[in-house]
Amino acid sequence: MRLFDGGRVPNARRVRIYLSEKGLSVPIAAVDLSKSEHRSGEYLAKNPLGRVPMLELDDGTVITESIAICRYFEELHPTPPLFGTGALGKAQVEMWNRRAELELYFAIQAVFRHLHPGMATSEVPQVAAWGEVNKEKANAAMALLASQLANNRFLAGEAYSVADITALVSVDFLKASKLAMPAHLTNLARWHAEVSARPSAKA
Amino acid sequence: MRLFDGGRVPNARRVRIYLSEKGLSVPIAAVDLSKSEHRSGEYLAKNPLGRVPMLELDDGTVITESIAICRYFEELHPTPPLFGTGALGKAQVEMWNRRAELELYFAIQAVFRHLHPGMATSEVPQVAAWGEVNKEKANAAMALLASQLANNRFLAGEAYSVADITALVSVDFLKASKLAMPAHLTNLARWHAEVSARPSAKA
Repeated sequence: MRLFDGGRVPNARRVRIYLSEKGLSVPIAAVDLSKSEHRSGEYLAKNPLGRVPMLELDDGTVITESIAICRYFEELHPTPPLFGTGALGKAQVEMWNRRAELELYFAIQAVFRHLHPGMATSEVPQVAAWGEVNKEKANAAMALLASQLANNRFLAGEAYSVADITALVSVDFLKASKLAMPAHLTNLARWHAEVSARPSAKA
Repeated sequence: MRLFDGGRVPNARRVRIYLSEKGLSVPIAAVDLSKSEHRSGEYLAKNPLGRVPMLELDDGTVITESIAICRYFEELHPTPPLFGTGALGKAQVEMWNRRAELELYFAIQAVFRHLHPGMATSEVPQVAAWGEVNKEKANAAMALLASQLANNRFLAGEAYSVADITALVSVDFLKASKLAMPAHLTNLARWHAEVSARPSAKA
């Protein structure tokens, strides 16, 4: 088994944080995105979308999509549970992981891809107006998470979950997108300090 | 328990198809989107994002996000499995459900929201250039699914899953977005005919 990683990009870090929380160690195959190794014929043969991370099993089966990779390990190593427990708990983790990803991460990513000069050759065409719109979407998403965190220690309740991991890599992606956490979202800041202090955040 | 439905919109249908495949019947609370009932104070108090569908449990707990609602029922009623079986099977359903949703559904939705005149008051601002870009993304996503369906009866393999439901409501959303399935994607057409013939597709 090999995890094709990808270094600093948020989705690669998402899987590394997950594995760290689980206490799992998986052999890493480094993919140098700056050298476009994810666009090489060898890589594209395994994953036509040319994205990281990617998990290759010993029989050659490939799993892509960071959450699908995490779910694979969750089934094999259910403790500690990071996708929730019980029907309601699992639904709530799914709900908040989706909100963290679809509302927050995707908005920040759109700002990065459509406004950052360094993305001009990989995001074709850049639509600057779409990037601008997503600045406001990112702020709205942060406000949504902050309101949930006003009454909950973590996003899906009292237990740390994969939803927190998704939100953490998203918030830490603000800087590269030249965005910032609004100062009045004190509950989000409190949560961010706590999840950032966990050893897994260094992964 | 009540499912706040929303009628013809793809995500509401996604949950109805899922429940039909499971043989489950859940009391429906109709939400008339044409009358903006999802923007009423009563609805927003339950779901600040103002979206459908939404599941309200007897104790008032609210679950939003169509896939989170489906996962809730999957845990309570695991047979027939629609989220896959085993670690690899579950990961593959997750992977293909995400590809169907993030690559295909989101692209079609962007075309609809940013180019359809009827969306001018709810998608503010419409970014026409972003809508145009997504026409090509939708075609690329359909080609990706078709290549998977060249070697698999259903998206995640030999068993029908929630990934097929997501892809079905997406393909059926093409027309409203003034898009069409490219004629050369015969594997996608073969799959679409098969999943459309299931009784659940009428839900």
